[in-house]
Amino acid sequence: MAVYTEISDSQLAEFLQDYEIGTAVSCKGIAEGVENSNFLLFTERGPYILTLYEKRVALGDLPFFLGLMEHLAAKNVPCPTPIHGLDGNVLRSLCGKPAAITSFLSGVSPTSPNLSHCKNVGLGLADLHINGSNYSARRKNSLSRDGWEKLFLLVEDKADHITPGLTKLIRSEIDYLKEFWPDDLPKGVIHADLFPDNVFFKDNQLTGLIDFYFACNDFFAYDLAICLNAWCFESDFSFNRHKAKSMTLAYNNRRPLTPSELSALPMLARGAALRFLTTRLFDWLNVVEGALVKPKDPIEYVHKLRFHQSIKNASIYGI
Amino acid sequence: MAVYTEISDSQLAEFLQDYEIGTAVSCKGIAEGVENSNFLLFTERGPYILTLYEKRVALGDLPFFLGLMEHLAAKNVPCPTPIHGLDGNVLRSLCGKPAAITSFLSGVSPTSPNLSHCKNVGLGLADLHINGSNYSARRKNSLSRDGWEKLFLLVEDKADHITPGLTKLIRSEIDYLKEFWPDDLPKGVIHADLFPDNVFFKDNQLTGLIDFYFACNDFFAYDLAICLNAWCFESDFSFNRHKAKSMTLAYNNRRPLTPSELSALPMLARGAALRFLTTRLFDWLNVVEGALVKPKDPIEYVHKLRFHQSIKNASIYGI
Repeated sequence: MAVYTEISDSQLAEFLQDYEIGTAVSCKGIAEGVENSNFLLFTERGPYILTLYEKRVALGDLPFFLGLMEHLAAKNVPCPTPIHGLDGNVLRSLCGKPAAITSFLSGVSPTSPNLSHCKNVGLGLADLHINGSNYSARRKNSLSRDGWEKLFLLVEDKADHITPGLTKLIRSEIDYLKEFWPDDLPKGVIHADLFPDNVFFKDNQLTGLIDFYFACNDFFAYDLAICLNAWCFESDFSFNRHKAKSMTLAYNNRRPLTPSELSALPMLARGAALRFLTTRLFDWLNVVEGALVKPKDPIEYVHKLRFHQSIKNASIYGI
Repeated sequence: MAVYTEISDSQLAEFLQDYEIGTAVSCKGIAEGVENSNFLLFTERGPYILTLYEKRVALGDLPFFLGLMEHLAAKNVPCPTPIHGLDGNVLRSLCGKPAAITSFLSGVSPTSPNLSHCKNVGLGLADLHINGSNYSARRKNSLSRDGWEKLFLLVEDKADHITPGLTKLIRSEIDYLKEFWPDDLPKGVIHADLFPDNVFFKDNQLTGLIDFYFACNDFFAYDLAICLNAWCFESDFSFNRHKAKSMTLAYNNRRPLTPSELSALPMLARGAALRFLTTRLFDWLNVVEGALVKPKDPIEYVHKLRFHQSIKNASIYGI
């Protein structure tokens, strides 16, 4: 099995002695999560998710992520709840790696999101922003204005091998956003990676938000801009205004956007497209041995970036 | 996700309409099974295993495997039970591939089998043989005497790259077994791949036998010889006589071995070692793109084969 780490039955049994959730009834490595090894663990108490944090996640950030999930879950945002060990700790060690057990969330990720999914993600994102606003810990967004450039410098010489002109496109966009990126918008905890595979639904109702391992403090509207990129384009890269309208109106109903957020939205959408273009480019050129998840083609975000560059104002996003 | 096939939420929803098990509550690709794509599927009724059969499994053999599981499960052998669709069929189609849903079995595979595991596998194997004996369908063992040679011819020129002398070792063993392989021993349905990762336990009790996709008609004692290879060697390749004794005595208690089976056991153990040596060698040299399962080092079976070559009679196996 090519999950990054294999857990033996005896290691698992010993690990579970530090919890009050019973003994293992079953434990299967699952193809979920890019950065970590995830297992669907059953004990007599039911299903849980067991996560081993691999080297791509900074150990120092884990208390922020786990604390955030616990904070949000306590406020009924449907996200995994970290399970405390007998000593009270949620972050523990298994197979020599940091590990945590969280609650299991039901639901299935939508492969082709519909209008109802987009609406409910808009509401869910606003709920996350509202309920996360009094979370006390802080984490800088390492994948914002400065981060894109650092990452791009590592792959700049190879970008044109993917598609001619890519280096110039990214370089000029980095320069443009450096100049025009907003520096004063409503801020707080954002998810920063709320793609369809990180959201579960049952009968179109949102049942789960997962994978908080990019969460950080940044502009709320930047998170919405990420979702516009992630949910509102079709497989032929065309923008679906109806989906965008469903999402932004729902978001705005729950957490009204300020005039400055509205006018910044096209710029934030460009930044979000650039963020995923640069990270996908990096991952495409640096495949991780043993990953369950194939790198995604960066070209998708070339099309998305060009779309956002072409628009005049936020009205195209339905708001 | 690098499960061989991805199932969309809409494909899954449509597929489940042909069953009476409710709608999908969750569906996760799991790192289990070398040949197929496996998913842990939850519906309102509970957990199931959904399997998509990839090209390495012959479509024509699937009714044999699924029918066998149903036959054995009906006789309380703890194996997956295929779930019938509304039209009565168990073998259906999903994402353009043959697919089946089976019951979910709890338990965890032992990483380091102990004496109790070995004893219970011996009993479970005998139960499988006894209860499978009146299963009416038949399937030839394609990985027996003739099969090894065919497979080896495909990799013969590369074997010495793995370790010098490997070509000669395998070639002479094939010739030897061709001459001395028994041709009249008690026969019936055998599992033919009952490794620790295909057996689940809970508190040392056997709770599940899975992965029947090598099952066939062959000598019962050959199945026991496979288990001796799979369960009774330590990680330093030394043979553990205590484990072998636990297994063979338990098996013999439930299904007494005949004198001819006993005297053939060393030969069958050599054949079993050769079988896994040749298939592992082939897999090692032909890695499947997108597999969740890494190929296993064939060298392990060089050591096992040499061990069985060195012994004089079956007493070393504890019987």
